[in-house]
Amino acid sequence: MTGVAAGTRSRELVIDLNSDMGEAFGAYRMGPDAELLQLVTSANIACGFHAGDPRTMEATVAGAVAAGVAIGAHVSYPDLVGFGRRQMKISADELVTDVLYQIGALEAFARRHGTSVRYVKAHGALYNDLVDDETLAGALAEAVLTYGSGLSVLTMPAGTSLEVFEKAGVPVVLEAFADRAYTPAGRLVSRKEPGSVITDPAAVAERGRRLALGEPIEARGGEELRVQARSICVHSDTPGSVALAVALRESLTAAGVQVKAFS
Amino acid sequence: MTGVAAGTRSRELVIDLNSDMGEAFGAYRMGPDAELLQLVTSANIACGFHAGDPRTMEATVAGAVAAGVAIGAHVSYPDLVGFGRRQMKISADELVTDVLYQIGALEAFARRHGTSVRYVKAHGALYNDLVDDETLAGALAEAVLTYGSGLSVLTMPAGTSLEVFEKAGVPVVLEAFADRAYTPAGRLVSRKEPGSVITDPAAVAERGRRLALGEPIEARGGEELRVQARSICVHSDTPGSVALAVALRESLTAAGVQVKAFS
Amino acid sequence: MTGVAAGTRSRELVIDLNSDMGEAFGAYRMGPDAELLQLVTSANIACGFHAGDPRTMEATVAGAVAAGVAIGAHVSYPDLVGFGRRQMKISADELVTDVLYQIGALEAFARRHGTSVRYVKAHGALYNDLVDDETLAGALAEAVLTYGSGLSVLTMPAGTSLEVFEKAGVPVVLEAFADRAYTPAGRLVSRKEPGSVITDPAAVAERGRRLALGEPIEARGGEELRVQARSICVHSDTPGSVALAVALRESLTAAGVQVKAFS
Amino acid sequence: MTGVAAGTRSRELVIDLNSDMGEAFGAYRMGPDAELLQLVTSANIACGFHAGDPRTMEATVAGAVAAGVAIGAHVSYPDLVGFGRRQMKISADELVTDVLYQIGALEAFARRHGTSVRYVKAHGALYNDLVDDETLAGALAEAVLTYGSGLSVLTMPAGTSLEVFEKAGVPVVLEAFADRAYTPAGRLVSRKEPGSVITDPAAVAERGRRLALGEPIEARGGEELRVQARSICVHSDTPGSVALAVALRESLTAAGVQVKAFS
Repeated sequence: MTGVAAGTRSRELVIDLNSDMGEAFGAYRMGPDAELLQLVTSANIACGFHAGDPRTMEATVAGAVAAGVAIGAHVSYPDLVGFGRRQMKISADELVTDVLYQIGALEAFARRHGTSVRYVKAHGALYNDLVDDETLAGALAEAVLTYGSGLSVLTMPAGTSLEVFEKAGVPVVLEAFADRAYTPAGRLVSRKEPGSVITDPAAVAERGRRLALGEPIEARGGEELRVQARSICVHSDTPGSVALAVALRESLTAAGVQVKAFS
Repeated sequence: MTGVAAGTRSRELVIDLNSDMGEAFGAYRMGPDAELLQLVTSANIACGFHAGDPRTMEATVAGAVAAGVAIGAHVSYPDLVGFGRRQMKISADELVTDVLYQIGALEAFARRHGTSVRYVKAHGALYNDLVDDETLAGALAEAVLTYGSGLSVLTMPAGTSLEVFEKAGVPVVLEAFADRAYTPAGRLVSRKEPGSVITDPAAVAERGRRLALGEPIEARGGEELRVQARSICVHSDTPGSVALAVALRESLTAAGVQVKAFS
Repeated sequence: MTGVAAGTRSRELVIDLNSDMGEAFGAYRMGPDAELLQLVTSANIACGFHAGDPRTMEATVAGAVAAGVAIGAHVSYPDLVGFGRRQMKISADELVTDVLYQIGALEAFARRHGTSVRYVKAHGALYNDLVDDETLAGALAEAVLTYGSGLSVLTMPAGTSLEVFEKAGVPVVLEAFADRAYTPAGRLVSRKEPGSVITDPAAVAERGRRLALGEPIEARGGEELRVQARSICVHSDTPGSVALAVALRESLTAAGVQVKAFS
Repeated sequence: MTGVAAGTRSRELVIDLNSDMGEAFGAYRMGPDAELLQLVTSANIACGFHAGDPRTMEATVAGAVAAGVAIGAHVSYPDLVGFGRRQMKISADELVTDVLYQIGALEAFARRHGTSVRYVKAHGALYNDLVDDETLAGALAEAVLTYGSGLSVLTMPAGTSLEVFEKAGVPVVLEAFADRAYTPAGRLVSRKEPGSVITDPAAVAERGRRLALGEPIEARGGEELRVQARSICVHSDTPGSVALAVALRESLTAAGVQVKAFS
């Protein structure tokens, strides 16, 4: 391998793995956080609006720091009983202030452990709503920018929100989903449709490898689709998530891809 | 003015006025915040556990910054329907993490407005419980110290908690109450007893002047009592609170006391 | 006046006045409930989802029973911080069960005072969403019917939900708004538009009289509009609501209209 | 077997098995409800204050009705994040109204399924606090009596609350714990002490048989202790709870004890 090629190639051969973490609440458990913290490089940590409570946040941040995993605020609509999965029509001002509150709360635990919140990722219904809602995207951008700590936004390469983030000067990190079917337009196939979620570890591993290498994946219908991504999302709330993450990680390593946080 | 006398006297002639702020919630209002922000020098801002929501926190911080008022986190037990006025038996770990969460959430709004949280004051039942509970005091100290921003604790000069704070190395700022009756031992007379709350502006003003000058006040029963204080608490949730604050402020100014934040 | 005409007329000369009640929460107050309970005949009582807590519900039910006012469950989306004013996309199953929960909780206080919940009225965003959403209307109908106590639904004479209620066999009571501007199609003019809310007591009183007598009112643009109504809603959360209710009640009495609960 | 003996004996040979149910919340699961509903005869159903949400309550009531299991309201302090396990100092009025709210909410689902709430059992910290707190016991009695449906209270045979219930005329059903160590005074050994919880199915089964037959069990220290009980509590939130319940049920059947709801 020559120097130049290696250099170019090494830039492409880095990927982050992010996963939702800290979604326990009080006496309730959710997700195999301890196992996943050994496999991923970025932890999207719930901040109390859809899941998470101060004890869970503290334990999750402590675990992430111990495992060398970067910390992001997994911000949500205020809907604990709905786990943040239900659309709510909130105003831009409500989103700005709800996001600031959540980032700040998580930052307290990060500070305690000598680190800081590095990025923001929207959760559930808010994640989906943001993609094509410029008002919400503008509000998220405002929260992130006025918080003032160089936070980036982790989101998918689709929708009108990307331009909003770009214009506002918010650093964006793109992510892809190795275990979800895509439409030819680069959108996720709704979970309600059959085949929308891929559960075979080998298939997920292969798809993740392609995403990391910048190779096209197969969209629904058979078309080739290129999804630009600096991070791959590893779901934590599905059975078998650890096995998927293990398979994905092995596949990436075998392909010479370095798994490393983006932040 | 000679050096020593001036030095001694100028130290005594400075007092802070603190008041509970931002206790609105959603559609609900509480307290004449706008008026009080023109009169006090430190704002104890609710963080969502007994009162306050992200919009209220944002507006209160913005108002405090505009008025040059210092910002403190008014931390509480998690009891919105009880307004934080009911005792809860929570563990030290629960208090540490609940306090970190609240400080962090408020800090986000402070950051947005170019300032930072300067101190922590416990609210309601937690305030009372802390005075003589060394476990809770230790937990508050741990939260404040591990947050790591030079925060001080605003509390009254009574109980075993003071020694806990001192040993832990937490800066303590003492406060007195110009509108409350004291026992000869320096405790507040329970609100359930007649005469426990002083509502006459002239009486409050005179009491505040004495507290600021380090002169003794009259405890219940007639005994003289000296209450050491760098700050005087101005209640916001009682009718006539603005008139009391105005009278107190005028009395302090007339006595040559400078009203100035401690932080 | 002939016998038949008198009979017909006396049926028309009865109107109910309904008002939102019990919207306090914990330490927070909302609305002049005590005064309004002397003026209205049906109380839409908050059940804890947008406002209200068990103490408030108990006190409001006790007050309504003492004043001879009928009790209805004012059911809402679960959004305390948003006061139920924000749209949420909840499923039919979620609405059925949320409504059952709220009716049942209120019924406990009604039972304690020897009465029962007589009707259901949706609050805020849910009220608006229901008018044209057949799925939500079907869910409300299912909740009301399976609760099994002869409950009626109080709503406005507009939208596709009326047919859903009718087909399901849910008794519907129609209401009008004496203090709101109407479009020629019988919809309320959005609160965001100027002139949408009428605050002049004389105008509200005259409009209420017309509504009670079945006479047309003037819609926005000047057209005549007939609004069928067995009840008139008296807002409780606006300044001057008591004065409006007094003026409305006097106008109705002067016109020979009997103010009487529909249930 | 003579008539009298048979009569006496048959009264003793009936026992109820009760278990905490419906402690899921939103996306969170808790306890093997489906399995336990096939084994117990009374379901203590969470009402939203420590656990439970309207969907969970609906599903749990539906399951209980399908399995022929009696329904009780498992009432709690309002502390979702603490799962109702933390003491709160609430007033008598607060307990009365909180309990009424919870019973009523559950009753709505019971009505929907053609049954009704039969009894009330306090949960967690409230259960423990009630045993020796006559004010709380009086408040619970008031809630139950003013609800007015012949509800009984399920509690343990200890403390001063029993007399309060008796004087107030509240039917009390006594319960014992087959998987918990008892002090010689008939109190439960704190969970913090080693050996406080019995996890061996055979031991639990034998202990349950003795309790059902009115035979003494061994208290901590070896003394014999008689615990009067019409119901045995089967914990649902511990690993192996289904195996324990199966062993207990088999042991009771083998001993000729009929497992039957008390209500």
